[in-house]
Amino acid sequence: MIIVMNNTATEEQIENVVSRIKQKGLEGTVSKGTEKTVIGAVGDERLLDPELLQSLPGVEQALSIVKPYKIVGREWHPNDTVVNVKGHLIGGDHIQIISGPCSVETPEQMKKSADGVKAAGVKLMRGGAFKPRSSPYSFQGAGLDGLDMFREAANNSGLPMVTELLDVRHLDAFLDKKVDVIQIGTRNMQNFELLKEVGKIDVPVILKRGMSATISEWLMAAEYIAIGGNHNIIFCERGIRTFETAYRNVLDVTAIPVLKKETHLPVIVDPSHAGGKAFMVPALSRAAIAAGADGLLVEMHPNPCEAWCDADQAINPDELKVLMGELSAIAKILGRTISD
Amino acid sequence: MIIVMNNTATEEQIENVVSRIKQKGLEGTVSKGTEKTVIGAVGDERLLDPELLQSLPGVEQALSIVKPYKIVGREWHPNDTVVNVKGHLIGGDHIQIISGPCSVETPEQMKKSADGVKAAGVKLMRGGAFKPRSSPYSFQGAGLDGLDMFREAANNSGLPMVTELLDVRHLDAFLDKKVDVIQIGTRNMQNFELLKEVGKIDVPVILKRGMSATISEWLMAAEYIAIGGNHNIIFCERGIRTFETAYRNVLDVTAIPVLKKETHLPVIVDPSHAGGKAFMVPALSRAAIAAGADGLLVEMHPNPCEAWCDADQAINPDELKVLMGELSAIAKILGRTISD
Amino acid sequence: MIIVMNNTATEEQIENVVSRIKQKGLEGTVSKGTEKTVIGAVGDERLLDPELLQSLPGVEQALSIVKPYKIVGREWHPNDTVVNVKGHLIGGDHIQIISGPCSVETPEQMKKSADGVKAAGVKLMRGGAFKPRSSPYSFQGAGLDGLDMFREAANNSGLPMVTELLDVRHLDAFLDKKVDVIQIGTRNMQNFELLKEVGKIDVPVILKRGMSATISEWLMAAEYIAIGGNHNIIFCERGIRTFETAYRNVLDVTAIPVLKKETHLPVIVDPSHAGGKAFMVPALSRAAIAAGADGLLVEMHPNPCEAWCDADQAINPDELKVLMGELSAIAKILGRTISD
Amino acid sequence: MIIVMNNTATEEQIENVVSRIKQKGLEGTVSKGTEKTVIGAVGDERLLDPELLQSLPGVEQALSIVKPYKIVGREWHPNDTVVNVKGHLIGGDHIQIISGPCSVETPEQMKKSADGVKAAGVKLMRGGAFKPRSSPYSFQGAGLDGLDMFREAANNSGLPMVTELLDVRHLDAFLDKKVDVIQIGTRNMQNFELLKEVGKIDVPVILKRGMSATISEWLMAAEYIAIGGNHNIIFCERGIRTFETAYRNVLDVTAIPVLKKETHLPVIVDPSHAGGKAFMVPALSRAAIAAGADGLLVEMHPNPCEAWCDADQAINPDELKVLMGELSAIAKILGRTISD
Repeated sequence: MIIVMNNTATEEQIENVVSRIKQKGLEGTVSKGTEKTVIGAVGDERLLDPELLQSLPGVEQALSIVKPYKIVGREWHPNDTVVNVKGHLIGGDHIQIISGPCSVETPEQMKKSADGVKAAGVKLMRGGAFKPRSSPYSFQGAGLDGLDMFREAANNSGLPMVTELLDVRHLDAFLDKKVDVIQIGTRNMQNFELLKEVGKIDVPVILKRGMSATISEWLMAAEYIAIGGNHNIIFCERGIRTFETAYRNVLDVTAIPVLKKETHLPVIVDPSHAGGKAFMVPALSRAAIAAGADGLLVEMHPNPCEAWCDADQAINPDELKVLMGELSAIAKILGRTISD
Repeated sequence: MIIVMNNTATEEQIENVVSRIKQKGLEGTVSKGTEKTVIGAVGDERLLDPELLQSLPGVEQALSIVKPYKIVGREWHPNDTVVNVKGHLIGGDHIQIISGPCSVETPEQMKKSADGVKAAGVKLMRGGAFKPRSSPYSFQGAGLDGLDMFREAANNSGLPMVTELLDVRHLDAFLDKKVDVIQIGTRNMQNFELLKEVGKIDVPVILKRGMSATISEWLMAAEYIAIGGNHNIIFCERGIRTFETAYRNVLDVTAIPVLKKETHLPVIVDPSHAGGKAFMVPALSRAAIAAGADGLLVEMHPNPCEAWCDADQAINPDELKVLMGELSAIAKILGRTISD
Repeated sequence: MIIVMNNTATEEQIENVVSRIKQKGLEGTVSKGTEKTVIGAVGDERLLDPELLQSLPGVEQALSIVKPYKIVGREWHPNDTVVNVKGHLIGGDHIQIISGPCSVETPEQMKKSADGVKAAGVKLMRGGAFKPRSSPYSFQGAGLDGLDMFREAANNSGLPMVTELLDVRHLDAFLDKKVDVIQIGTRNMQNFELLKEVGKIDVPVILKRGMSATISEWLMAAEYIAIGGNHNIIFCERGIRTFETAYRNVLDVTAIPVLKKETHLPVIVDPSHAGGKAFMVPALSRAAIAAGADGLLVEMHPNPCEAWCDADQAINPDELKVLMGELSAIAKILGRTISD
Repeated sequence: MIIVMNNTATEEQIENVVSRIKQKGLEGTVSKGTEKTVIGAVGDERLLDPELLQSLPGVEQALSIVKPYKIVGREWHPNDTVVNVKGHLIGGDHIQIISGPCSVETPEQMKKSADGVKAAGVKLMRGGAFKPRSSPYSFQGAGLDGLDMFREAANNSGLPMVTELLDVRHLDAFLDKKVDVIQIGTRNMQNFELLKEVGKIDVPVILKRGMSATISEWLMAAEYIAIGGNHNIIFCERGIRTFETAYRNVLDVTAIPVLKKETHLPVIVDPSHAGGKAFMVPALSRAAIAAGADGLLVEMHPNPCEAWCDADQAINPDELKVLMGELSAIAKILGRTISD
C-alpha cells in the first residue's frame, strides 16, 4: 500500500503512520518527494485498511496496489476454470447458451419451452419460480409449485435446470429438487448472507452483476462464495444502470474482456434483461459472443405475447434457432464451440 | 394508461390492444391523431402491465398515468405521518437526529458513545452489530454479542436503539432484544423477502435508499413493507452512485423535496455514508435540514481514528455538539424543532 | 401530446390547458378517467413545449408522443442512407473501418501510419491535428501544421482523411485542405454553433456521442446539422460515462440496434476511446460489428509505446491486420461486406 | 508518481520504466514488495504522462500523487479569493444571489424582472440572450437584440448583468456591451477554445459544471481560463446527470465542501436548472447556502407561466423575496452575509 501525505504533514504525523503500519506486521518506507512525502507499506497489505489510514492526521490518500480478491483472481490461477453442469462445459473453449422463459407459469408452458430449447440445440434450460419484482402488486412467481413444474419439464427433456434463489430459507428446497445451477440475481449480488450459504454447497452458481456494481465489487461478491469452498462460479453481466432512458439497461460489453483478464472463472451475458426488448436480443447476443463471453442466459417463451412477466424481452423458439446459427458461426471464428 | 401505437399500426392491431384492455375490466378509447393513434385505458390501471402491452404488435409505448404506489403515497394520505419512537417524534414539525458509531465494538466504546450522544442533546442512538462489507476479509460486525452490548448501553442511557437487520433469520433476535428501530440497509432495499418480514411487525423501520435506486423503486420498496401492515416507515437518503470519484457517493438533496411531495412518511438523511469523509458531514447535515429533511442518521465515534470500520466518516462528540447547535438554528428558521 | 392533470385539478385549470393548446392551432380532447383527467392535444405537437405546459396550474405531466426529430428519423425515411466518401460507402450493406493514430505527430509517423492502414486493407484514415485535452498542460495537437502533414500522407497513400474540428474559426482551413470527413468530438456534440456551421457544407460529418448524451439528445444534435442541408451524417458511439472505474468508458453496444431502428443514417463505433486500453480493442471491435455497426473508428499507431497521446489505447499495424480478418468473417455472417 | 509493475514484470521492463522517468528529468526509485515492484518517480511529476507510462510493458498502473491543477488549487493559494463585480463581493464571508429570467424576451419583461430582483434585495441580474437548446426547433434566444434589451434594463436598474457566452465569435459584442459577468454554460465547460478566449480578458467568468464532469475535470477547465491570466473565476454547480428520472438533474451538494477545500475560488449553485421545477428551488437554495456555497444563480420570472423557455423552473418575484429572507438567516448562522 502507498500512503501519500499532504504537503503540510509534520514529522510526527509521518511517524504515526509508520508505527501503525508496523503494528500490523508490515514495513514502512518513507520517501520524501519534491512536493509530498510518500510512505510505502511492504508486506501483506490485505492486513491494512486504507480507509482507516486515510483517517489519520496528515494523510491525503492511501492506495492499494494488491488486488483485494485472491481465490477468484487470475493472478494466482492463470488457467481458465471450466464449470461442468452434468457434462455440459462452460469456460475455456466451451460456450453454453442457457434459455427458457422468464417465469415458470404452467406445466404445459414449461413443456413447450423445453421443446423450443432442445429444437434450437441449446443444452441448458432456465426459468424463474421465485421472481423479485419491483412492485408488491406484480406476479411474484409460482414459488415451490413452479420449482416442481420446472423439475418435471427438466426430467422429461433431460435438460439441466437453472433457476434463481432469492431467500436463504429456500435453499433446502432447491437442494431437494436438485436444481442444477443456482442463479443469484442482480438485487442479491451483495446479499452477503445468501452468498455465504451458496458458498457452502457444491452446486454451480451464476452470480449476476448488481445493477450498479463495479467490477471490483462483483469480484469480491464472488470471493464471498469461493471462500466457503464452492468454486463453481459463473459471472453473468446483465446490463448496468446509467443515465440513458431509451432502454432499460446498458449491456456492459467492456466488462467481458476486462473480467476475463481479472478472473479465471467463466463469464456469461444476459442479453434479455440488458436491453429489455426482444428486438435487441439478437444484436446483443452476437456482440457478447464476439467479445469473448463464455455463454448466454437468454429468455425465450413459446408465446411471448402471453407471458406473465417481462414479455417484452423474450424471443420465440424460431428466433432462438436462427440466433443459435449465427452464434455458432461467430464462435468458430474465435476458435470456440457452442453447446458441445 | 395511455398506449401509443406506432405510425404503421393496422386496424387489427389497434383492436387487439383494445380487447386486451377490456379483458382486464377497463375501457379502451381510441383517438386518432394526425400522426399516431393513441388508446386510453380507463379504469384501475394497476391491473394492466405496461410491459405486456408494449410487447403487443403495433404498440410503440405504454405510459402509466397513475402512481404505482398507494399506501405510502401522499395522493391518498395528504397529511404528514409522524412516527413515534418511545415518545420521540419524527415527521411533521419534529426533527430527530440519530447518532452513534458505525459498528458496535466494545461495551466501553458503546458507553462512551451513548455519553457523547446524550451530551449533544441527541435523543436516539445508532450502532451496527451486523455489518454488510464488500470484502469477506473485512470485519463483519460483532453479531449477536454486539446486539447485547448495544442493548445494555441503550438501557443505561435511556436512548432508544437503532440498528441494521441483514438477514431474515436474525429477526427473532432483534425482537427479543427489543430493538427500537430496525434499519434496512442500502444493499437490502430490494431484498423483498426481508421487506415482507418487517412489514409483519410493528417496530419502526428506516428504509435506506438503494445505491442506485430511483425514487419510484424506493417508494415501491416501502409499499412492500406497508402492505404487510407496518406503516411506521422512515425513508433515509444516503447518497447515490454516480460517475464522480472524488467522493464515495453524491448526497441526493433533490430527493428530499420530491419525496416529501410524493409521500406522507418522514424522510431522513445519512450524511456520513453519503460523503464518506468526516469533513463533509457538517455541510451535508446542514444542507439536509435546510432542504426539509425530518432527521439525520449521523455517525459519531468517541475516537474516530481507532474505529473498526468507516473510521474516515465519523465525527467526534465535540463536533456533534457544535453541529446540533447549527441544526437547531436552521430548523427554527423553517418553523421546526429538533430533539423535542 | 398527452397532458395528465393531477387529481385535484379544477375545471378552470383543465379549460386553461385546453385554451393554451388551441392557441397553438391544435385540438384539445378531454377524457376523465376514474382517478385522473387526461387531455390529448391533436395536431402538430412539435408546436407545443411540454415544459411550458407542465408549469401550468393543475398539470402533473405532459408527454410527447411524436419523435422530436424529423430529418434524421427513420419514421419518415425508412431506407438506409449510404454515405459516400470518395467512392467508399458506409451504411446499408457496406461497412468501413477508419484507422490511424490518435494525434498527427510527424510526417514520418503519418507515412508509416498510412502504410499500416493500407496493409490491413482499411480504406479510410484518421488522425487528430487539433486535440481537446482535459489539461491545459497536455499536448494540444500539431494544429495547422498537423493538417498539412496529414494532407500529404493522405495524398501519397490515396486514403481519404478524417479529422476532428474543434473551433468554428478553423472551418475554412479544413475546407481549404479538403478534409474528406469532419469529425465532431464528444465534447462538442452539443456545441450547437459548430453543428450549425457544418450543416451548411457538404462534407460528410462524423458526430460522436457526448460522454453522457442520451440517444434522443444525440439524434437532436444530428438534426441541427441536417436542418442546415448536410445529410451526410455518421453517428459514432464512443463509450459513455458511468459509475464504473475499471475502464475509461462503457461502450454502449445497446445503442447500435436502437439507433439503427430510430435513424436511417449510418452508425459506427470507436472501440479505442471507449475502453481506453489496447487489449480491449479487438473484443470491442468484434462486438460492434456483430451488433450491426456500419463501421469503426479505431486507433492504430506504428509504435504505440511512443505515441504522443492516448498511447495506451492504440493497437499496432499487425494487430489491425489480424482484427480486419476477424471483422470480415463476422460481417459475412450478417450478409455484409467490409472495405469494398 | 507511483508506477506499480505487475507481478510478472521482468528486470528489463523495470529498467525501461526507470529510464523513461530519467529522460524527463525525474529520479526513479525502485522498491520491491512481497508481491509487486513499485517505482517512485521523484521530481516534477506534471512532466510525466501516466497514460504513456501505463502503456509500457510490465506496467500495471501509474498513479499521480500531485494535483494536476496549480493556479486554481488551494494548495498553493490557501486564502479565499473574493471576486469583485462592480463593488459586489463574492467569496470569503460574502454571499451574492444572482437572479433574473432564463431568457431575455422583451424590454418590458426585462424591466419587470429588474424590479423584482431589486425588490428582493438581490444585487446582480441574470438573463440569457443566446440559449443552447437541445432541439433546433426550440427558441434559440433573442441574440444580439437580447443583449441590448438586457444592457438597457441593467443600466436603468444599476444592476450588473450576467449572461451566457456560447460562441467565440460573440466575444467582441459581449465586451462592447460591457457584460459584467460572462457565464460559460454546462455544454461548454470543455469547449477549450472558448475557455482560452475568456482567459485573455479580465471580465469575471462563471464556469458552470459540465452535466457529467468530474470535480477534477472542472478544476482543469478553470485552469484553462486561469492560465491565460484571468483569475476572476466563479464555479457554478448546476446539477449532474444520474440514473434518476424523477427530476432533471441531481444537485451535487457534496461538491460544495469538496470544491471549497480544493480551490480558493468562489463556488455558487444554480438551484433552478438542477431540479428543473420551481417547487424544488427554495429547498435546494437553502441547502446550497447551508452547505457553504458563496452564492446562487436562481431563475426568477415576473410571470413564470408565460416565460419563453424553462418556464417550469422559474420562481416569481414574491417567492424570491421570501427565499432571500430565509437565506439571510441561514447565512448569519454560518457567520456570513448576503448581498452586502
